Amino acid sequence: MSLQSKSCDPVPPAGAADTSPENLLTGIAAFLADDLAEVDGLIHAALLSEVGLTNEIGRYLQASSGKRLRPMLTLLAARLAGERPDAAPHAAAMVELIHVASLLHDDVIDRAPLRRGNPTVNAGWGNDVAILMADYIYTRAFAITFQWLPLELIAVLCRAASGMCDGEMFQIEKRDQLLTEQDYLHIIRCKTAGLFSACTHLGGALARLGDGAIAALDRYGLELGCAFQITDDLLDLTADPRRLGKEIGTDIACGKQTLPLIHAIEKADADDRAFLIAALSDGQSPEKVVERVVKYGGLEYALDVARRCAQQARECLDGLPDGPALKFLRELTELVVNRAY
Amino acid sequence: MSLQSKSCDPVPPAGAADTSPENLLTGIAAFLADDLAEVDGLIHAALLSEVGLTNEIGRYLQASSGKRLRPMLTLLAARLAGERPDAAPHAAAMVELIHVASLLHDDVIDRAPLRRGNPTVNAGWGNDVAILMADYIYTRAFAITFQWLPLELIAVLCRAASGMCDGEMFQIEKRDQLLTEQDYLHIIRCKTAGLFSACTHLGGALARLGDGAIAALDRYGLELGCAFQITDDLLDLTADPRRLGKEIGTDIACGKQTLPLIHAIEKADADDRAFLIAALSDGQSPEKVVERVVKYGGLEYALDVARRCAQQARECLDGLPDGPALKFLRELTELVVNRAY
Repeated sequence: MSLQSKSCDPVPPAGAADTSPENLLTGIAAFLADDLAEVDGLIHAALLSEVGLTNEIGRYLQASSGKRLRPMLTLLAARLAGERPDAAPHAAAMVELIHVASLLHDDVIDRAPLRRGNPTVNAGWGNDVAILMADYIYTRAFAITFQWLPLELIAVLCRAASGMCDGEMFQIEKRDQLLTEQDYLHIIRCKTAGLFSACTHLGGALARLGDGAIAALDRYGLELGCAFQITDDLLDLTADPRRLGKEIGTDIACGKQTLPLIHAIEKADADDRAFLIAALSDGQSPEKVVERVVKYGGLEYALDVARRCAQQARECLDGLPDGPALKFLRELTELVVNRAY
Repeated sequence: MSLQSKSCDPVPPAGAADTSPENLLTGIAAFLADDLAEVDGLIHAALLSEVGLTNEIGRYLQASSGKRLRPMLTLLAARLAGERPDAAPHAAAMVELIHVASLLHDDVIDRAPLRRGNPTVNAGWGNDVAILMADYIYTRAFAITFQWLPLELIAVLCRAASGMCDGEMFQIEKRDQLLTEQDYLHIIRCKTAGLFSACTHLGGALARLGDGAIAALDRYGLELGCAFQITDDLLDLTADPRRLGKEIGTDIACGKQTLPLIHAIEKADADDRAFLIAALSDGQSPEKVVERVVKYGGLEYALDVARRCAQQARECLDGLPDGPALKFLRELTELVVNRAY
């Protein structure tokens, strides 16, 4: 499986250490260190409660937090004009909180036992706690935003947040049907890319860039988010489970139709097609699923679509104010299609 | 069981037809007819989506909607100064949407099969749909509010909404312990009365009443909400299941400790105490639970607490501008402790 070692190998090729995903994220984190510390403080404050259980889950979520990609996108876009706007950390905290809340509910819906190698809140504390914690986070996140963001940006965030629900509802509505590639792209635009797009839109607007630049950043986030999600779905089939923090094939075991699978089902002969469709219901034999997806070029096809999205994201950056923030936004278009985790 | 026929009899006493709960709600609905129609239109618009499944649930929720008590409270308070403020229907729609969303998640958490005699969304469409629909409603409700309400009132709503989650989390945190009356009152203040309080606070603020009047309305909503919830919990033990729209004893079957039960457990002898505590785990024999709760005066005690709350609510209205809105707010303090449904 040459593709896997090409795109998802956790070991960077010799001589390329400076541009590895890990180094890029470390570089961005260093560039944004003060901002990200402020974001963490805001998230911490938002998760505080008078109820011990709420605080306990809040601490757990902060300790097991992810890469903070959405705050980074917001903050990078906000720094495109040079100085950092005062409201940028609040916007960045808000998008991260919306993301965290949506993951809590996703994990209940998917009955997911693990996230980033740690037990999910639903697995550790029960569905009721996970559902309520997410509601708490949503309401606290909105409480932050309205104090700091102008109306038109709150509208952007609300649209992104309700779009995430719409995307998931559309996916549920279609769960007994085979998805087309167009359905899949619609779902990932709503569920993932819409929030990425809100991040860079918000950042650009807070930086007081012009309408054209804000629209370009909005589109950048959308394309980047699609590339990110397609690669994320690929990792479910190709990643090292220890790095991924969960078993491979869990998407398929949940009946989730991702692009490599959709492509393979479209191209497969009758037997393989029947096998792949059955795997969506019984969740058995992830290795055999991967074997057939590879046979019909599903991994390469999906990676190719992701690369085209990343290329389009890159092109959206043309003409934006040059500087370290733009450089990082450009490099992120490489990272999203070269992820090992 | 004299208490039941006294407080919860669906047939109003002879000669009292004009002040029956049904007539009061009909009277308020007639007084607010135009406003409530506008609220319904706003709720309808908020529930619209491009996704068929979301629209289907939205229609179902509107068709099986409740008494619209929270919008009524908001609109009555908003009309205290005479004219109706422009933003009042938006505030009223917002509180109803928050209420509906919270019920969707409550029903998932309680695994409730029925609400108001109809299958719950979780029972009819699954937990995933119910969870997502509530998230959709929250985000859409916030999107309405931001456009129509001043910052300080959005803060009131956000606090009420996150307080509802906090109350439920506190309840979960305590689920393996016996609740005190104080715990119970804290929970119902957070889960129910906080939103009632936000309703009347918002209405008063939109009517541009003074700070003292707004604080009195806030307190009115809180006390009314407590009276309402205590009576609601009483109905779980005493109501006619056909009118209630669900079986009696479902709260106890879910391990929910309500005031009559808490009081009875405190007063009971060792055997009865053990029986009542066991009923919280096994949910068996609701009739025998009611029998013991009656034996230790639990129903009367809870009704007495509810009546004191209603009396305090009534006293909060002293000095507010007189007129039909105030008359209805006063009569609602009678209704909440004389409910048959």
